[in-house]
Amino acid sequence: MVVKVYGPHCASAKRVLVCLVEKEIEFEVVPINVLKGEHKDPEYLKLQPFGNVPVIKDGDYTLYESRAIMRYYAEKYRSQGVELLGKTIEEKGLVEQWLEVEAHSFNPPAYNLVIHVLFPSLLVDGTPDPKVIEESEAKLVKVLNIYEERLSKNKYLAGDFFSLADISHLPFTDYIVNNMGKDYLIKERKNVSAWWDDISSRPSWNKILVSYRPPV
Amino acid sequence: MVVKVYGPHCASAKRVLVCLVEKEIEFEVVPINVLKGEHKDPEYLKLQPFGNVPVIKDGDYTLYESRAIMRYYAEKYRSQGVELLGKTIEEKGLVEQWLEVEAHSFNPPAYNLVIHVLFPSLLVDGTPDPKVIEESEAKLVKVLNIYEERLSKNKYLAGDFFSLADISHLPFTDYIVNNMGKDYLIKERKNVSAWWDDISSRPSWNKILVSYRPPV
Repeated sequence: MVVKVYGPHCASAKRVLVCLVEKEIEFEVVPINVLKGEHKDPEYLKLQPFGNVPVIKDGDYTLYESRAIMRYYAEKYRSQGVELLGKTIEEKGLVEQWLEVEAHSFNPPAYNLVIHVLFPSLLVDGTPDPKVIEESEAKLVKVLNIYEERLSKNKYLAGDFFSLADISHLPFTDYIVNNMGKDYLIKERKNVSAWWDDISSRPSWNKILVSYRPPV
Repeated sequence: MVVKVYGPHCASAKRVLVCLVEKEIEFEVVPINVLKGEHKDPEYLKLQPFGNVPVIKDGDYTLYESRAIMRYYAEKYRSQGVELLGKTIEEKGLVEQWLEVEAHSFNPPAYNLVIHVLFPSLLVDGTPDPKVIEESEAKLVKVLNIYEERLSKNKYLAGDFFSLADISHLPFTDYIVNNMGKDYLIKERKNVSAWWDDISSRPSWNKILVSYRPPV
C-alpha cells in the first residue's frame, strides 16, 4: 500500500516527506494549492476538518498533524531505514522534548517571520506587519542562543544522533536561510551553523526540496 | 527512585501529574512560584533553559515539555496503571494526532483566554486585551465545533479509549468551565459536555486539582 501525502509543497508536509524518505517508505503526493484555498474545500475538510495540510492516507487509515504522522511512521517502521527516535526510551524522551521545543518555541516565531516576509498574501489583510517581523526575529534569537549552547554539547538536538527533532526544523529554517536574507541568524552561531550544514545536506532533504517547491 | 516534578501548581504541570497518577508512578513536587518569577531564576534555568514549567528529574534524567514528559512515562510504564497510548500503533497514531490538535488548535486560544481573563499580571504590560479575549473565544468556538462532531462518533478524542490526548485538555478546560464563567462553551455542546463530564470526574484529575491550586 503506497502512502498518499496531501499538500506536499507546504512546509509542514515536508517534515513528513523527509521522514518517509529516511524510513524508505514509498509514497505518492496529492497537490493541495493553499494559495487558491483548496485546503478549505469541503472535500478536503472531510479529511482534515481544521483545514490544515498535510494529511496522509494509508489504505483506510487517515492521519493529520505533521509531527504526529512523523512519529507514527518512525515507530511503525522502527527497524527500517534510519532510526529517528533514538535507541533507548531515555533518548526517545529527549527526541520528544526537542520536537516539542521546535513546535512551541522555534516554530511560532519562525512561522510568523516566514509568513510576514515571504507569503503576506496568506495573512487575513494581506499586509505584512513590521512589528511582528521585529518581535519574531527577537524571539528567534533567544531560542537560537539556547540551541547554540545545546549544540555545543551534542551534535544534534536530542543527542549525538539524528532524529525527528532535527527533521522538524528543516522546512522553516530553509526559508530563513535561503529565501529571506536572514541566514545570519544561523551563520553567526558556530554550533547552530554546523548543525544546519549537517542536517540540510542530507540527501532526503535535498530530494524533497527540489521535488516540491513552495508556496508555503 | 521517586520522580520530582517542578512547578506542580501550573496548568501544564498538571498534565504530567495526572499522567503519573493514572500510571501509578510515585512522585514528589518542587514548587516554583511563577508569579514571583522563580521560573527565570538562574538555578532553574540550568534545568529548563527556556524558563518554562514543568520539568521532571528522575534520578539523573531531566526532561521538560509537559507533553513530552507524558509520552515518556506512558511508554516507559506501558503495562502499569491505565494504558494511555491506545492498544495498536494505529490507535497510538490517533493519540498523537489529537495531542497535536490540543497543542496547536485548542491550547493557543484557551491559553490566551485564561491569561487575559484570570492572570493578566503575567502579561508583559499587565493589562488584559478585550480584542484578544474576543478573538480567542471565537477561535475556541470553531475548534469545539469540530470536537463536537468528533465526539459524536467516539467517546474520547482518539477513539473509544481514554488517552493522553484527553488528559492534555484538562487543566485549561477546567479554568474555562470553573473559574471564568465560560462553561457555556462546553455545556452548549452535547458531546463535548458529556466528554468533559467523563474526563473531569476521574479520580486522578480531582486528586491533582485539590492538591495543587493555581496560580497558572
